[in-house]
Amino acid sequence: MNFDKQIQERPECTVERALAVIDGKWTTLILRDLLAGTRRFGELRTSLTGISPKTLTDRLRDLERQGVVTRVVFPEIPPRVEYTLTDKGRALGNVVYALAEWGAEWT
Amino acid sequence: MNFDKQIQERPECTVERALAVIDGKWTTLILRDLLAGTRRFGELRTSLTGISPKTLTDRLRDLERQGVVTRVVFPEIPPRVEYTLTDKGRALGNVVYALAEWGAEWT
Repeated sequence: MNFDKQIQERPECTVERALAVIDGKWTTLILRDLLAGTRRFGELRTSLTGISPKTLTDRLRDLERQGVVTRVVFPEIPPRVEYTLTDKGRALGNVVYALAEWGAEWT
Repeated sequence: MNFDKQIQERPECTVERALAVIDGKWTTLILRDLLAGTRRFGELRTSLTGISPKTLTDRLRDLERQGVVTRVVFPEIPPRVEYTLTDKGRALGNVVYALAEWGAEWT
């Protein structure tokens, strides 16, 4: 990656940089669920009504790559896979709580 | 609209209800700009690098319909159109500030 590209991909605005990580409804709702604690894939899928398994897999992989979520596979039969927020992910709680408060007051 | 439909369209979760209004990168960046004060269409278009005029028009219309933004047309030649946040819109400041803080600390 050249330097110009790097600058281009890292906007000066911190809001834009945050949105590059948590843009989109599903990502925000995954964070909402994981703020309540560790969840298995199937638990997330049940909670997030209407999400396809592919979209859930993609979003979790993005969040893992961004360092927001850790994925732990337990060597059981059948394998158990659990998702947990990192410190970086828990810090997004302020965004989700601000959304919840606004939604409660204004919608 | 029947009652079942109404229930279906208004999720119990306040985060989901908030996301129905401010889902998407462009909407959040429009809010960021308008939190700094009233803006003309052209000013928003310049600030939001890469947005198409159609998308900007659509997002502003959505925000106006949701009661987040007011649109005032001044009867000048050429007409001047200004967009300003309502109280409901200014209350979304907490969400944008939380994103900005997180972006500054973690990205």
